[in-house]
Amino acid sequence: TAAYVSYKTYGVAYTKAASNKFMADPITDQKTLNSNRNDMKARMELFIMKVQADFCRALEAEEEGGAVFKVDRWTRKEGGGGITCVLQDGEVFEKAGVNISVVSGTLSPQAVAQMRSRGKKLQEGELPFFAAGVSSVIHPRNPMVPTIHFNYRYFEIQEDDGSIQWWFGGGTDLTPYYLNEEDSKHFHKTLKEACDKHNKGYYPKFKKWCDDYFHVAHRGERRGVGGIFFDDLDTPTQEQAFRFVSSCAEAVIPSYLPLVQKHKKDAYGYHERQWQLLRRGRYVEFNLIYDRGTKFGLYTPGARYESILMSLPLTARWEYMHAPQPGSKEAKLTEVLRNPRDWLGLEGEAH
Amino acid sequence: TAAYVSYKTYGVAYTKAASNKFMADPITDQKTLNSNRNDMKARMELFIMKVQADFCRALEAEEEGGAVFKVDRWTRKEGGGGITCVLQDGEVFEKAGVNISVVSGTLSPQAVAQMRSRGKKLQEGELPFFAAGVSSVIHPRNPMVPTIHFNYRYFEIQEDDGSIQWWFGGGTDLTPYYLNEEDSKHFHKTLKEACDKHNKGYYPKFKKWCDDYFHVAHRGERRGVGGIFFDDLDTPTQEQAFRFVSSCAEAVIPSYLPLVQKHKKDAYGYHERQWQLLRRGRYVEFNLIYDRGTKFGLYTPGARYESILMSLPLTARWEYMHAPQPGSKEAKLTEVLRNPRDWLGLEGEAH
Repeated sequence: TAAYVSYKTYGVAYTKAASNKFMADPITDQKTLNSNRNDMKARMELFIMKVQADFCRALEAEEEGGAVFKVDRWTRKEGGGGITCVLQDGEVFEKAGVNISVVSGTLSPQAVAQMRSRGKKLQEGELPFFAAGVSSVIHPRNPMVPTIHFNYRYFEIQEDDGSIQWWFGGGTDLTPYYLNEEDSKHFHKTLKEACDKHNKGYYPKFKKWCDDYFHVAHRGERRGVGGIFFDDLDTPTQEQAFRFVSSCAEAVIPSYLPLVQKHKKDAYGYHERQWQLLRRGRYVEFNLIYDRGTKFGLYTPGARYESILMSLPLTARWEYMHAPQPGSKEAKLTEVLRNPRDWLGLEGEAH
Repeated sequence: TAAYVSYKTYGVAYTKAASNKFMADPITDQKTLNSNRNDMKARMELFIMKVQADFCRALEAEEEGGAVFKVDRWTRKEGGGGITCVLQDGEVFEKAGVNISVVSGTLSPQAVAQMRSRGKKLQEGELPFFAAGVSSVIHPRNPMVPTIHFNYRYFEIQEDDGSIQWWFGGGTDLTPYYLNEEDSKHFHKTLKEACDKHNKGYYPKFKKWCDDYFHVAHRGERRGVGGIFFDDLDTPTQEQAFRFVSSCAEAVIPSYLPLVQKHKKDAYGYHERQWQLLRRGRYVEFNLIYDRGTKFGLYTPGARYESILMSLPLTARWEYMHAPQPGSKEAKLTEVLRNPRDWLGLEGEAH
């Protein structure tokens, strides 16, 4: 992976050699990427291409039956496009999606108004924008292996006077079907280490933001055991914010793959599978009712809905009034979803 | 059923004899119902109780294995309550929900603003309201039997000067997994006959409204083959509007039960079942992303979410980039979902 470090740290040209390691050709043509090698738009595009390829290859390596990702490179008539990679019906992964998109165009007045309402100082009206991001949801087959989601994105908006506003956003979070405290701690510890290299305040702040965001409000439950989530990050400098986002994205594999390897051959039965399907129903509820990215995506005219909805599980279930038996393993998970935990014992530390 | 006609046509007292035919005791106490027998709130409550009971009994009669509805009567601390009846995992019905609710309380300023935005002339701020409705979604097991949904409701809002605004809303629509033109025509014809008794303009207007409302916009597909849908009906008089809504609700059984009886023993295989599950995924998309009632319900503090989400199928499926084979039975359905049909040949008639 040494060949790629350069994209992150310096502004190195896109080469055919790099291209061969990606899942498909980048969206932006080679000449433009090369001539803008110091521009964050080009750097982010090459970086998310690498994150996508590394993660897809790491997941494929777990599929002993040889399942591989199907790769769709698509373009958008309004500007830009994306690469959607989906592995469906594997032995280990029931449905795994890893998507990158690099899009530009004009933000609608409604979208601008929504950004202003969350505190962005933007002029009203239509504004040119650029967005590049990687997002992924992995639904494993074995109920003892958790689902992971992550998304890292870079956004630019240009105002009438030509000035650019930019920011990063993203996060990584885990949704187990059965609680394994050691797994949750490993996951949070890996994310914390990625954060701590940049700012000791990031992990506690973004851990709480994650618990608050992935909230299935009508049920009073979190989607899973959390992780980190942040948005509108434009400090301390563009370079440092990019390095932080890079550290987070690079922490995905070490946070998650050990859990896949540890549990992918665990024994389970009909009961555990049914519970997994019910929890996947809750996952669908969050994504379709509350998730800002999904809603923003689906309400965008000409959106590639297949790339947005690849986050949905292959199968989900809804039973009327289902409640786990008190004291059961299922009830133990539900308890944690209702009362998010301080996995790394940091609150005690603060006293 | 003669004993019930009285509720619809006159303001007759609620009696114990009537109660025994309902799924549970009404939400409003017997004394209040009796003393308000000419008030639309009491009349609508008794009417939806009867619609619920009649429909549940008609569905149970199709279940040769003896499956019956589970009945939950619930109350709401803010005022009112409901009766939720669900039959799950039957031989004929995989998941069937029939809910009534009779609630009162104070509309939030946001809810009032939303009503004003769709043209209601209401003062701003919090306003006392009353709502009574029946709603139902039936997901059969056999893919040759369509899913039906219906909802009929009465709403009252009281302004500061004591004046009352009232209106009715509702509709019935059909979602087949395989297109059977004869079934669609029977369904639409039954609804048209119910409409025509009251106003010849209703069916064409409410049929189009239904096609426009049940639109999975991001896919450019309707949820099913339509039916009727209307809202804010406050003409020509309260009595006549109630009689129209009664006719619609009473048309549910004759529009749908013949289709269940005709197809519940049709042969099908793995392929048809998988297609049914994929279409149920689309049903979930509509209900969680677009349906106004579901959103209004779930965003209401203290909502009984189990009664709202009983509309979701027992199982649903999402495959990345699934598309039916050109020329297949599945493609034939999709074609109709993209281009709603004039089932009764009325457009030709108008020329």
